[in-house]
Amino acid sequence: MTQATLPATDTVRIALDERSYDIAIGADMLASLAQRADVPAGTAALVVSNTVVQPLYGAALAAALRQRYPVVHSVVLPDGEEHKTWQTLNLIFDALLSHACDRKVVLYALGGGVIGDMTGFAAACYMRGVPFVQVPTTLLAQVDSSVGGKTAINHPLGKNMIGAFYQPRLVLCDLATLDTLPARELAAGLAEVIKYGPIADMQLFAWLEQNMDALLARDRAALAHAVRRSCEIKAAVVGADERESGLRAILNFGHTFGHAIEAGMGYGVWLHGEGVAAGMVMAAELSRRLGLVDAAFVQRLTDLIARAGLPTRGPVLDAADNAGRYLQLMRVDKKAEAGEIRFVLIAGPGQAIMRAAPDALVREVIDHCCAIV
Amino acid sequence: MTQATLPATDTVRIALDERSYDIAIGADMLASLAQRADVPAGTAALVVSNTVVQPLYGAALAAALRQRYPVVHSVVLPDGEEHKTWQTLNLIFDALLSHACDRKVVLYALGGGVIGDMTGFAAACYMRGVPFVQVPTTLLAQVDSSVGGKTAINHPLGKNMIGAFYQPRLVLCDLATLDTLPARELAAGLAEVIKYGPIADMQLFAWLEQNMDALLARDRAALAHAVRRSCEIKAAVVGADERESGLRAILNFGHTFGHAIEAGMGYGVWLHGEGVAAGMVMAAELSRRLGLVDAAFVQRLTDLIARAGLPTRGPVLDAADNAGRYLQLMRVDKKAEAGEIRFVLIAGPGQAIMRAAPDALVREVIDHCCAIV
Repeated sequence: MTQATLPATDTVRIALDERSYDIAIGADMLASLAQRADVPAGTAALVVSNTVVQPLYGAALAAALRQRYPVVHSVVLPDGEEHKTWQTLNLIFDALLSHACDRKVVLYALGGGVIGDMTGFAAACYMRGVPFVQVPTTLLAQVDSSVGGKTAINHPLGKNMIGAFYQPRLVLCDLATLDTLPARELAAGLAEVIKYGPIADMQLFAWLEQNMDALLARDRAALAHAVRRSCEIKAAVVGADERESGLRAILNFGHTFGHAIEAGMGYGVWLHGEGVAAGMVMAAELSRRLGLVDAAFVQRLTDLIARAGLPTRGPVLDAADNAGRYLQLMRVDKKAEAGEIRFVLIAGPGQAIMRAAPDALVREVIDHCCAIV
Repeated sequence: MTQATLPATDTVRIALDERSYDIAIGADMLASLAQRADVPAGTAALVVSNTVVQPLYGAALAAALRQRYPVVHSVVLPDGEEHKTWQTLNLIFDALLSHACDRKVVLYALGGGVIGDMTGFAAACYMRGVPFVQVPTTLLAQVDSSVGGKTAINHPLGKNMIGAFYQPRLVLCDLATLDTLPARELAAGLAEVIKYGPIADMQLFAWLEQNMDALLARDRAALAHAVRRSCEIKAAVVGADERESGLRAILNFGHTFGHAIEAGMGYGVWLHGEGVAAGMVMAAELSRRLGLVDAAFVQRLTDLIARAGLPTRGPVLDAADNAGRYLQLMRVDKKAEAGEIRFVLIAGPGQAIMRAAPDALVREVIDHCCAIV
């Protein structure tokens, strides 16, 4: 057997003691997967995918895995945030048990954030924990959700309410898989890239202002930079606070408003990144009204979000009392304590803080930032 | 307010670094709970119980908790192993979310092993992890299931297949709650006490031979000794191997056959401890046929199990091919690897090992040890 040559890849390390792992970023990585030394050994692999991604990349991944595992099974889930439920999760358990998979099975999440979150949670729970690998095929999953070990499903009363902190063994970000990503989902992923600017790195923000057109045109080098820098920032934050006891919560900038939008519209109507985009404008405006940033900063963020093709205004969730509906939904956010909403705010460009805010001020922000869509 | 006097208690420490906690063993501990310094702080408590235990101890526990938490909620689940399902688990999530409980909620498991396993798994998953306290009210839960952090629910294709390793903050073993335990469940708990003899401590085994009548008569001092010694052994094993990568599996002596009995009869028909009792005889007989122990040891174990009022023979699960049915069910055991069943066997009185065994020999044991019931 001749030694295959690995394609050029960047690697970002997530340092979490014995739970440490690499994020590998490159093109056409599926085919070379079997040559990697850090692919976990096992008695079987189960590829978890959905009806959209499976026809595109399922066969290539399964073929690669057959070089490393005695058997390769697959399960194909329905596509969409509205299916991030126990019922869908149970399809993974059904597959594992009907194939008599033991504790040495390795799960592969092939898809976007929903597939990654559900596969990770299934791996956390199956026989109290089996290894899994993330193979994110959306920009959002590559820059955010596949990294850091947050896994979950939704409950009718709240998003990501049932889950686990459970780290993958490896994350393979194949930039080639972004070629098939719908434009709307590419933009949704850019929302999470933009996020890293205000909370941590205004140099990245300025780079995004320079390179937004290249990213929207799926320039491979631009995408590689955006994915790598996003993963580096996330790695630093997660390495310092794996279980979100403090710092890690800053990664939820825009998410408190964003989750309210997603839940209020019904999961899947707005994409997660779209809710985050409008939510970041609202959080920035709240920061401004608290005297933390100036209007020019809010405008600069709003402009970049608009250039990415993302919504800059939240939807009206309730014509009679829109702000009240937002507040009601935000009070069940996981960061809330004793009914007090904890907002991620911008204390100055590149620096996030967490704090509460007076209801009256939050209401003003919501009234200012929402439009009937 | 005068200082209340704590009743005399024994304490067994589970040493797991930052996840360490105490098992407190004593009588009438519910009333004094609020005076304990190690009760976790929180914004609310949720007592999880079932239709049998709630009327007996629910009010006393809630009254004690009201001295420590701003609000105390409760949820009452149906009773029995057959309800250890996602559907029942979801009643806990529904209660937490409908009461808008945040990450500072503390769950209290008031009941037997099923309540403890489900409450612990709910605590592991709710908002990716909230604290919980075990208040076991059955002997089985006090000596085994409430200690060590194994939590799970059943899947139609296998027992405890979906779960987490998640440690409680405190275990309160109130011996007074055993007064109301049905005799059949007391015996089922004794199966797990007896278990600790062959695998770890033949002195305990000899003590049980001397004191079985006192235990069956619910002598408080005898129960205190049995609970404390069982917890000490379990603490030592769990402290050395929290996630069952090796040693911990010896605690499953009798459980491979026992789980097959439970699943084959339908969950809840045989109590867990009853399956383990018959399973221990089968595992001992398999050990004998492998030349590891002599017939006198098997007889001594069988006699003690019989004196506890427990079954010493397994049920016939399939009249046409009983051994085949047992083998089929045991192959989906969590300890199996690539379809090979890993048995916990006795290598000599007080010493357990794990190993596989030839199917033909296992079949002989099943044929020898089963009876139509």
